[in-house]
Amino acid sequence: MNSHTDDTADTKKIKASMTIAGAGPVGALLAIILGRSDYNVNLYESRADSRKQSLYQGKSINIALSDRGWLALEAVGIAEKIRTTAIAMKKRVMHAVDGSLTCQNYGKEDQAIWSVSRSGINEELLTLAEKEPGVTLHFEQRLTHVNFENACATFSHKSIGQDHISQEVHADYLFGADGAYSKVRRLAQETPRFSYSQTYMPQCYIELTIPANENATGDARFQMEKEALHIWPRKDFMLIALPNPDGTFTCTLFLNYESENKNIASFSSLKSKTQIQDFFHSNFNDAMALLENPVEEFIEKSANPLFLVNVDPWVVNNKIALIGDAAHAMVPFYGQGMNCGFEDCRILAELINEHQDNWSKIFPDYQNNRKVNADAITELAKRNFIEMSELSGSATFLLQKKIEAKFHDMYPNLWIPLYSMVTFSPQLPYSEALEIGDKQQKIMQKIMQIPDIENCWQDDFVYQKLHQLTKHHLS
Amino acid sequence: MNSHTDDTADTKKIKASMTIAGAGPVGALLAIILGRSDYNVNLYESRADSRKQSLYQGKSINIALSDRGWLALEAVGIAEKIRTTAIAMKKRVMHAVDGSLTCQNYGKEDQAIWSVSRSGINEELLTLAEKEPGVTLHFEQRLTHVNFENACATFSHKSIGQDHISQEVHADYLFGADGAYSKVRRLAQETPRFSYSQTYMPQCYIELTIPANENATGDARFQMEKEALHIWPRKDFMLIALPNPDGTFTCTLFLNYESENKNIASFSSLKSKTQIQDFFHSNFNDAMALLENPVEEFIEKSANPLFLVNVDPWVVNNKIALIGDAAHAMVPFYGQGMNCGFEDCRILAELINEHQDNWSKIFPDYQNNRKVNADAITELAKRNFIEMSELSGSATFLLQKKIEAKFHDMYPNLWIPLYSMVTFSPQLPYSEALEIGDKQQKIMQKIMQIPDIENCWQDDFVYQKLHQLTKHHLS
Repeated sequence: MNSHTDDTADTKKIKASMTIAGAGPVGALLAIILGRSDYNVNLYESRADSRKQSLYQGKSINIALSDRGWLALEAVGIAEKIRTTAIAMKKRVMHAVDGSLTCQNYGKEDQAIWSVSRSGINEELLTLAEKEPGVTLHFEQRLTHVNFENACATFSHKSIGQDHISQEVHADYLFGADGAYSKVRRLAQETPRFSYSQTYMPQCYIELTIPANENATGDARFQMEKEALHIWPRKDFMLIALPNPDGTFTCTLFLNYESENKNIASFSSLKSKTQIQDFFHSNFNDAMALLENPVEEFIEKSANPLFLVNVDPWVVNNKIALIGDAAHAMVPFYGQGMNCGFEDCRILAELINEHQDNWSKIFPDYQNNRKVNADAITELAKRNFIEMSELSGSATFLLQKKIEAKFHDMYPNLWIPLYSMVTFSPQLPYSEALEIGDKQQKIMQKIMQIPDIENCWQDDFVYQKLHQLTKHHLS
Repeated sequence: MNSHTDDTADTKKIKASMTIAGAGPVGALLAIILGRSDYNVNLYESRADSRKQSLYQGKSINIALSDRGWLALEAVGIAEKIRTTAIAMKKRVMHAVDGSLTCQNYGKEDQAIWSVSRSGINEELLTLAEKEPGVTLHFEQRLTHVNFENACATFSHKSIGQDHISQEVHADYLFGADGAYSKVRRLAQETPRFSYSQTYMPQCYIELTIPANENATGDARFQMEKEALHIWPRKDFMLIALPNPDGTFTCTLFLNYESENKNIASFSSLKSKTQIQDFFHSNFNDAMALLENPVEEFIEKSANPLFLVNVDPWVVNNKIALIGDAAHAMVPFYGQGMNCGFEDCRILAELINEHQDNWSKIFPDYQNNRKVNADAITELAKRNFIEMSELSGSATFLLQKKIEAKFHDMYPNLWIPLYSMVTFSPQLPYSEALEIGDKQQKIMQKIMQIPDIENCWQDDFVYQKLHQLTKHHLS
C-alpha cells in the first residue's frame, strides 16, 4: 500500500513544459513566475551569463523603475534587495540654457521614480530563477528556428572549435521574451495573418557620463543634485541625466539622426570637433563643466536608434506568445518599457491562477488584456518626447502641472495627473490612464485660458471651475 | 592604329552590374529596362520557369490592367501583343440580391480597364528580357542572404539529389522585385533604421469559377456580359468576376476571416455544407446558377489573406532597392497593384536617363518620387473596398458618379473623377489624385445635399453650383 504522500503526488497534475527565449529582466521574471507555478521551464539566452563574464564591464546602464515594476518585483520577493541600491528621483530638475534650474515634483512628497541598474536587476532575477527546482538556464544559445505548430524551438551554440551545434527544444509552450529585436517575433512574421510594424523615430541617442567627485564621500560625490532626474530641454533635442549609486550620472543625449532643416542640429550635421564643441557649449554649458569628454564620446560612439514595435497577434496558435519588448518595444520617454514588461508578467501570473493553468483561456485573455495597454503606453511614450524636450522648459506647462498637483491634493480621487496615473497607480490600466488623460487635457486647456491665470492660479474660483468641469466631463 | 569603331567602344562607359531578385512581371520588366540601358543584369527567380513547367496549370488568374500599366508596356513594345488576349471591361455591372443589374461606366466611352492573364504578361516579359544581350535569367534559385554593404546576394538551388548549392552573386546594385512576401525586404529589416509594417485586413479571399458555355462559340461562350467587371456588393463581403478569353469568368469572394458579430458571415463562421449553401443562395442567387461547385470549392480551398506593406526607406545604402509589391504590397480593390509596380519601372527608366546612370542621384529621386505615390494608392486601394462592396450598391453613390461624369463631360480639364485620375490619367501622380479626390469629395457632399437632387440632377443650376465650388476650392 502506498503512503499518503505518494497518493498526493499521483494526483498532483503534471504541468506543461515551457521554453522561454531571452533571459533579460522580463524573461528571467517570467521564468520565476512559471517555475513557482510548477511548470518545467527552460530559459535560453544568446549571450553569455553576465554574472560570470561581466558583460556590462562594470558600467551601470540605469533605467527608471516605478510602481508597476516594483509591484511585480514585490510579488517575487526581491523588491527590497533591489531598493538598497536604487536611487529615488522625486523630481525633474530642468536646466535652462543660462544654467538656471527649475524643479517639478513627479508626484506627492513620498512618491518617486527610481534609478536602478538594469544589469543588477537582471542578475538578481537570474539568481532567483536558478533557485527554482523546475527552472533551467541555458546561456550562449542562439535561437535559429521556431516551429509555430508545435512550439519546438531550435537553438545553436558554439562548441569547442568553431562549429555550431543545433539542438531542438520541445515544449508545450514557447515565450518570446527576447527583447526589442526579438527573433521569435521576426520568425512569426512568416505565420498567417501576422500584422507587424517597426517604426523608427527621428531621434537617436548616445550615452555620456558625468563622473563622481573623487575627492568626496557620501552624497557629496554627486556633482549635481542626487535625488532627481536632470533634463536639459532644448525642443528639438535634449540631454537627461540619471544618478548612479557610485556618484556618477549616466547622461543620454537625444538628437535627430538627420535633419532637413539645416538650422536644427543632428548627428549627421555635427561633423567637426569645433561644431560639436560649439553645440555642447551653447546648449549644455553647465553640463559641459561636468561631462567626461563629451566631444570625444560624441565622435567615437555611434548613435543608437529608437523605434516602436506593434504586433498583432501576440499569441500564435495558442502555443507561442510574445512578452515584454518583443511584443511592445517603445521609446524610453515615459520610463515605462521595463515596467510594462514586468506588468505583462504580473498579469500573466494572475491569469494562470484565475484559469487554473488552462492555457486555452490564459493566452486569449493575456492578449486581450495586455495589447490594448501596451498600445496605450507606447502612444504615451511617443508623446512624452515633446513633454520632456519642449514643454518641460515652458512656464505655461509647468504652471498647468502645478494647478493639477494642487487640485489632486484637494480631490485625490477625482483627479490624478496623467503622469501619476501612469507611474504611481499600478492598478490602473495604461489604456484608462490614456483615455482619462486626454479628457483631463481638454479640461486643462479651458483652465489655462482663464485671464491672468499666471497670477490667479491659486485662487479658489479656479478650482471651483476645475471641479465643475471635471464633474461634468470625467465622472 | 585602332579603327574608329574601336575608339568608340573604348570611350563607351562600362556600366554597372545589377542583380534582380524575383522574375515576376515587375522584375522581368525591370530587367528589360536595365538591359536596354546597357547594364549587365542577372535575374533570379525561386520558382521554375513557368514557360517550361506550366506552373499555372492552364489556369488564367487574371488581373485588371489599366493605363499606367499599358504606358509601361508600350515603352518596351509589347502592349499590342498583350492586348490581343486582353478583354476590355468598360463598366461595372452590379448584381443586386434579387438578381437585378445596374451598370456604371468606368470612364468615357473609349475608356476601359482590361482583364489580362498575369502569367501571360509575365511570360511575354521573360521572353523579351531573355532577348536582351546583357540579361541572364536564373530559375529555381532561392535568395538566402543579402550583404547590404556591397549588394552581394546569396542564392541556393537544389542540385541533383537533395543537396542545396549556394552561390554568391556579386553586383554593383541589387533590386528586390520579389513581391508581397519579399525576402530582400525581410532581410533588410536587420539594417539600421528600417521602418516596416505589414497590416492584415479583416477580409480574406478565395477564387471560384464560372465555366464557359460549352455549346456556344465566340462571345456566346460567356454566361454573363463579357466586357464588364461584375460585382455582387453585399456591404460586409462581395463577389466579383472578371472575364477570360476562353469564355470563363474568374470570380473572387472577399469575406471576413472571422467576425465578432455573429450575424455577419465569415470564413470562420460558415462551417457546414448547409450553412455555405444557404450563404451562397441567399446572397448570390443569380451567380449560384453559373458557378462551378462553389460550395465544394469554399470547403476545399483555404482563404488567402490580404495585407498592406509599408517600408521606409526603399533604398538601403544606395545599393539595394525595393520595387513593386516588395515595396508597396496593397489590397486589390483598386486594381492598381501591378500597374503601380510597372509605373515604378517606368519612372526609374526616366530617372536613369535624366541622371545619366548616376545612381547616387537616381536612387534618392526614385525613393522620393515613388514612395509618396505608393502610399497614396495603398490608401486609395484600402478605401475602395467600401466603395466596391457597399457604395456600388447604393443609389445615392451611383447618382453622385453620374453627376461627376456629366460634369467631366462639360469641363474635361476642370474635373476628372477620382477613379479616372487613378485609372486613366497615367501622367498624374497617385498622390495628386488622392489629394484632388479628397477635395472633390467635399464638394460633392454639398451637391448631394441639394434638395430633391434625385430628380433635378440634370438641371443646369446643379452644374453652375458645382462649377462655382470647383473654381473656388480646386483651382
